[in-house]
Amino acid sequence: MRCEIISVGTELLMGQITNTNARDIARELLSLGIGVYYQTVVGDNGPRLAAVFGQALKRAEFIILTGGLGPTDDDLTRETIAGVLELPLEKSSIWEEKLKEFFSRSKRPMAEINMKQAMIPRGGTILLNDRGTAPGIMLEQQGKIIILLPGPPREMLPMLKTQVIPLLREKLLEKGSLAVLRSKVLRVIGLGESAMAEMIRPLLEEQTNPTIAPLAKGWEVHLRLTARGNSEEEVEELLASKAGEIRKVLGYYIYGEDEEELELAVARLLWQSGKTIALAESCSGGLLCHRLTNIPDSSRYMLAGLVTYSNEAKANILGIDPALIARVGAVSPEVAEAMASGVRRLCRADIGVGITGIAGPGGATPQKPVGLTYIALQTDDFNICRRYEFWGSRLDVKERASQSALYMLYRYLIEKLKKM
Amino acid sequence: MRCEIISVGTELLMGQITNTNARDIARELLSLGIGVYYQTVVGDNGPRLAAVFGQALKRAEFIILTGGLGPTDDDLTRETIAGVLELPLEKSSIWEEKLKEFFSRSKRPMAEINMKQAMIPRGGTILLNDRGTAPGIMLEQQGKIIILLPGPPREMLPMLKTQVIPLLREKLLEKGSLAVLRSKVLRVIGLGESAMAEMIRPLLEEQTNPTIAPLAKGWEVHLRLTARGNSEEEVEELLASKAGEIRKVLGYYIYGEDEEELELAVARLLWQSGKTIALAESCSGGLLCHRLTNIPDSSRYMLAGLVTYSNEAKANILGIDPALIARVGAVSPEVAEAMASGVRRLCRADIGVGITGIAGPGGATPQKPVGLTYIALQTDDFNICRRYEFWGSRLDVKERASQSALYMLYRYLIEKLKKM
Repeated sequence: MRCEIISVGTELLMGQITNTNARDIARELLSLGIGVYYQTVVGDNGPRLAAVFGQALKRAEFIILTGGLGPTDDDLTRETIAGVLELPLEKSSIWEEKLKEFFSRSKRPMAEINMKQAMIPRGGTILLNDRGTAPGIMLEQQGKIIILLPGPPREMLPMLKTQVIPLLREKLLEKGSLAVLRSKVLRVIGLGESAMAEMIRPLLEEQTNPTIAPLAKGWEVHLRLTARGNSEEEVEELLASKAGEIRKVLGYYIYGEDEEELELAVARLLWQSGKTIALAESCSGGLLCHRLTNIPDSSRYMLAGLVTYSNEAKANILGIDPALIARVGAVSPEVAEAMASGVRRLCRADIGVGITGIAGPGGATPQKPVGLTYIALQTDDFNICRRYEFWGSRLDVKERASQSALYMLYRYLIEKLKKM
Repeated sequence: MRCEIISVGTELLMGQITNTNARDIARELLSLGIGVYYQTVVGDNGPRLAAVFGQALKRAEFIILTGGLGPTDDDLTRETIAGVLELPLEKSSIWEEKLKEFFSRSKRPMAEINMKQAMIPRGGTILLNDRGTAPGIMLEQQGKIIILLPGPPREMLPMLKTQVIPLLREKLLEKGSLAVLRSKVLRVIGLGESAMAEMIRPLLEEQTNPTIAPLAKGWEVHLRLTARGNSEEEVEELLASKAGEIRKVLGYYIYGEDEEELELAVARLLWQSGKTIALAESCSGGLLCHRLTNIPDSSRYMLAGLVTYSNEAKANILGIDPALIARVGAVSPEVAEAMASGVRRLCRADIGVGITGIAGPGGATPQKPVGLTYIALQTDDFNICRRYEFWGSRLDVKERASQSALYMLYRYLIEKLKKM
């Protein structure tokens, strides 16, 4: 089934908002094996929308439109599509009731213009919208499926996932043409894209189904496996088996799957090992603590994260000798180690982490460039301190510092668990 | 000048990446008064790209394409566009040199396929690319301007801004049809969208040039003013004058313009007042400290941010009486105040902030729901503690807590500066 996506809205055309809808729709359709052939953005303009829709009718079997279903005069999608298909608009009593209920619940008077949203092209099916006043509409005309959805993503996305996709799945099953397509992402840390590709080269070269696509993403590399088959089970089996082969080669370099962030991998290892942690941050400004406390239930491992920004705070709170700071400077391996051991002692934590560096853009010296960072990790039987030179903006340096500290924790905990 | 944007790439069509290029190009063109009439996404497919480009030639005077300029076989844009325009490809000796230099600098051997990237349709002008091996190309054919740019945003964007936009500006000046369009965003805090609209209703009703568009954004409201005129000076004057009228009504509710975040507004007030600050966070997990240290030179006000996550940390580090925590609970106004005063004393800061709450999803009780948060601010002559009930995900609660604390600081510092 050839699909085409039409996004309606002058704010999209002018670049005032990003077209995340087209991306999200394409992704969901891909999971049903439906290929999108074109995406078009057109403004709130009747004749131009009519022309774009007319063209789509010629080249696609399935057309999905978003936007232009609001109550005001510049919302033209409903009327334009009905016009091209030569269908009269008829009032839906179901949606008329919904509208009245919606406005009485929100204790607002309903403007007369809102009733426009209860008008549906003849033969159309209403798709319910729990989060707004515009219903979606499905039409089957000339052997084609046409779906209209509201533009705001928070209304559109749930409608897509809970109504449109199940409907399409049914249609495809009826036609006997349901191909199942699924992706799984393996998230890799500690290896660059080319080093990783080298390690799994035979797998990359022989790929067919699933396909394997490496992608550098932020400070990591992601491997996207995509499998196609006739059933969920078959596809899941293909993905699991290929993921297993890759895991055999890459081992602990794969820290998680799909949406799992590195902080979740570290959190799981902390839970498994029963260890507690305390952080002393300087240049990373609390970002490491923020990430480690984004995980629900992080209070089971996180005792405290102290952002000792000033030298006085490093001395008074962590007990670091001011003479040491004066001698070697706050950005030094000695101070990173003293931060890690200081916070560990203060909080009686199993693991202490210290981060000190120059986030920039100011603060550099000829010996200590922007981005220079030391990260130390200490426990009762292990300690390490590493030197990094990160580049980029202030936020880049903060992000890379937190990412490197998480990776250090990840490696330490994996080794520790092996011995436990 | 009617413009059309064509984005080439199967990864866009399949929703694997978001089409930020079309958005960014539309925005930049708008600043020259060039209206985009259509945006189209098409895959790495010669015949379909040729059809889309042929259609664009019929309906636009200016066409900008991104993507498909890479060295591999699925990169078809250069060849396809040359084909439709019936122009032969010719080797650019300038770019051949660039390619050789690029590969020798990065100490990698140049593959033969890379030479494809030095092939330019006859009559085309090269647009330099400092960050990759694909040059941009500008063609003037049949009275139309056609521009090809590489797909990766980090290559495309600088080329757009430093080469394409200045070139277009010149063309428009030659034709005498340069309209200048500029936007300015006023960022509003502490008012909801409808309350703000009510306050500036006369201005909203009489708007012509500049136009005024309110937009709820995150936990704030943004007002976008857009002015059109014949010169930069005229447009800047229109924007400044309208912004002045709005500022007269909204006063300190406007905390910044354009890309300025609330943390920058607070940083400026801290610098102005010469005050130092120390934070004690719990549920916000260091996010407030992260935001306040994202500002370059934040070390001039930030002494320390202590994320005292466990009750023991609150007691041992901040000196809060464990009996108090046991009696009223860690999430209480008493503990928020003790955190603010404790960290202030410990760091000898002018201002102490304490945040304690339940970020969720666990940890709630019938009396203390997820989202319940207390924020306290203390100085030597002022203290306040406010109760909030935030809703949403764990990250939502963290974000709203940090945002509310910044707003509290913002209001306090404005009042303080009035009296100084």
